[in-house]
Amino acid sequence: MRYFDANATTPLRPAAMSAWANAQSSLWQNPASPSSAGARAASTLEHCREQLATLTGTRASGIVFTSGATEANNAVAAFEAARTPDACAIVSAIEHPSVLEPVKKFFGARRLRLLPVDASGTARLDVLKDWLAAGGTTFVSLMAVNNDTGVVQPVAAAHALAALHGARFHCDATQWFGKFPAGGLPACDYISGSAHKFGGPKGTGFLIFDTVRNAAFSGQCGGGQEHGRRAGTVNLPGIAAMLAALDEADAEAAEENTAREAARTRFEEIVLQEIPGAHIHGSTAQRAWNTVSLALPRHDNLRWMKRLERLGFTVSTGSACASLDGSPSHTLAAMGCDSAVVRRTLRLSAYWETLPSDWHMLAGALGQTARALDEEARHTDPESGVITVP
Amino acid sequence: MRYFDANATTPLRPAAMSAWANAQSSLWQNPASPSSAGARAASTLEHCREQLATLTGTRASGIVFTSGATEANNAVAAFEAARTPDACAIVSAIEHPSVLEPVKKFFGARRLRLLPVDASGTARLDVLKDWLAAGGTTFVSLMAVNNDTGVVQPVAAAHALAALHGARFHCDATQWFGKFPAGGLPACDYISGSAHKFGGPKGTGFLIFDTVRNAAFSGQCGGGQEHGRRAGTVNLPGIAAMLAALDEADAEAAEENTAREAARTRFEEIVLQEIPGAHIHGSTAQRAWNTVSLALPRHDNLRWMKRLERLGFTVSTGSACASLDGSPSHTLAAMGCDSAVVRRTLRLSAYWETLPSDWHMLAGALGQTARALDEEARHTDPESGVITVP
Repeated sequence: MRYFDANATTPLRPAAMSAWANAQSSLWQNPASPSSAGARAASTLEHCREQLATLTGTRASGIVFTSGATEANNAVAAFEAARTPDACAIVSAIEHPSVLEPVKKFFGARRLRLLPVDASGTARLDVLKDWLAAGGTTFVSLMAVNNDTGVVQPVAAAHALAALHGARFHCDATQWFGKFPAGGLPACDYISGSAHKFGGPKGTGFLIFDTVRNAAFSGQCGGGQEHGRRAGTVNLPGIAAMLAALDEADAEAAEENTAREAARTRFEEIVLQEIPGAHIHGSTAQRAWNTVSLALPRHDNLRWMKRLERLGFTVSTGSACASLDGSPSHTLAAMGCDSAVVRRTLRLSAYWETLPSDWHMLAGALGQTARALDEEARHTDPESGVITVP
Repeated sequence: MRYFDANATTPLRPAAMSAWANAQSSLWQNPASPSSAGARAASTLEHCREQLATLTGTRASGIVFTSGATEANNAVAAFEAARTPDACAIVSAIEHPSVLEPVKKFFGARRLRLLPVDASGTARLDVLKDWLAAGGTTFVSLMAVNNDTGVVQPVAAAHALAALHGARFHCDATQWFGKFPAGGLPACDYISGSAHKFGGPKGTGFLIFDTVRNAAFSGQCGGGQEHGRRAGTVNLPGIAAMLAALDEADAEAAEENTAREAARTRFEEIVLQEIPGAHIHGSTAQRAWNTVSLALPRHDNLRWMKRLERLGFTVSTGSACASLDGSPSHTLAAMGCDSAVVRRTLRLSAYWETLPSDWHMLAGALGQTARALDEEARHTDPESGVITVP
């Protein structure tokens, strides 16, 4: 199968697999144990922390390893809501549910404002500016890269605005790491990341926080691990594997992103030519090189997905997390998309092993699928007036 | 090294390693993805849930996979404190910090009563009965096996008392699973477990809850995973590995616990004979076959630990989680131990690969260490009056 669902998850990189297996065989002891073996594990853990700090251009003391971005996002929302019990949060309307729901839970709907996006799927800085100027906001959250469209968000500008008004700024960078250089984000108050989006193991992630501004931060409690910031036996094999993956992903991003972007652009040109009436959500904005949110002119996206699967391509109808409850993409809805268009939209998301030829073959398969589904529809309903794509 | 710190963590079982690697190569897709590969992963996930339900004698619908027992314990405390905002919690004084601290955080010190233990380290049921009869308690938490002493707690009786008074009952069974048959616990309202204590991977655990009594239960939010009970991409390789480990551990417990207990008993007899004045905390109570909390008559436990390490034995001065802040065991303190005795106590905890000969050699090493430390002390301070153990 050619895999185009990388925004849901990625396979484990061989380097991460090796790092995990090595740690399991020689560094499996508890880093919190007072034994020499424990001390060796603890020292490797701090080495991993330094490595992540170097890759992200942050400080090791501000890094907390977690079970993933969802845990990190929950912890930030809980901590910030408790820090300022009466103030409000501004969160973009296109955040991942793991930001939206915890903020709703801990701040409450009354203390939450959803920042709109424009038609390209980019957060509205003008609105953010006005809302911040009105006062009463202590927390702003804006993702780095949207998981549905790949649209890169104006994080640096939003962070600057938040800082100007004394609000803490959180960036869920789950879809940034592995696609862009890890050091390319501004120094936010909080940054979340998740290993399995860049070839690391599931169940591992991190939160980077500003140790000066958010000195009291802590997440799940009940043990002194992570310098008292996050209790629970540290998953050192997972962390070592995550760092091996990020290190590799970062080197690739520096070398290959231009070529990757070109392959995706060529794919889009072919598809738009082959399937008249198709369009790409967010195409006027800067996007991650791996993501195409493709609105098809006809037929339900599940039918497209199933047929592409038979042709050897794994694609998605949208976010994996959202697909669980069958709800259509709230990102596309926030961009003003008609729900009928949302139901005809596929999410195609490549990863580091995707070759230009894979994109090219996917374009061919999409054209073939368009013809087949049209044919099927004409067969079912000869009066439907569907015109076969030539 | 002969490893006697298994209550801190265990190595990965080869069966768990294989299950993990297999899942990483063939089931790495996101179980929440609508693709066929996602559906295969989702089906394996539900199979794992059924397997855990069978092993524990519970229902699959009441199983939530987590990043470990600390997450599970935090989630239960948060949920229960919010469920009954004015009621009180009774928690045993010897719980792991991952129960004590979240309950303190979410209920508040004012709403929390610490249930005392007797001199053997067993929770006082008579006190629990009185406190419950006084009313106002909606939550009781008692661990299955204490991590410091290995003392098995009267969970069934405590659960029955809690149920009689309409309180929810939580059992942190982190040190139970892998040492005793998984199906040996009563049907509590909540049971937590952690994979890395029985040869599964770190960063994986579970919460079993009663779906009827605690129907609204949910932990971290922001995604529909785990039937809406716990958000975050599911760590299927970790879960598959955990089940492989537990399956193996359970079969061993049924077959080998009698012999394991005998080896430990023999060890204790030799040590008590070799080192006059030594004693074993909790020796009058039923204990897990793997744990010996050994109070030595002389010398700081860190010195014992370091010297035993040089002789090829990894032992511990106490709980790994507690050792991070250098605090002495709150379990031993709750049992009425003098702090001087606590500082002379070693925790020895075996695992599935420990042979009777390992225990035997550890007994010899302890005797040798006693003589060496006495010698050292006499050398440093000839007037100390220390008598060399013959």
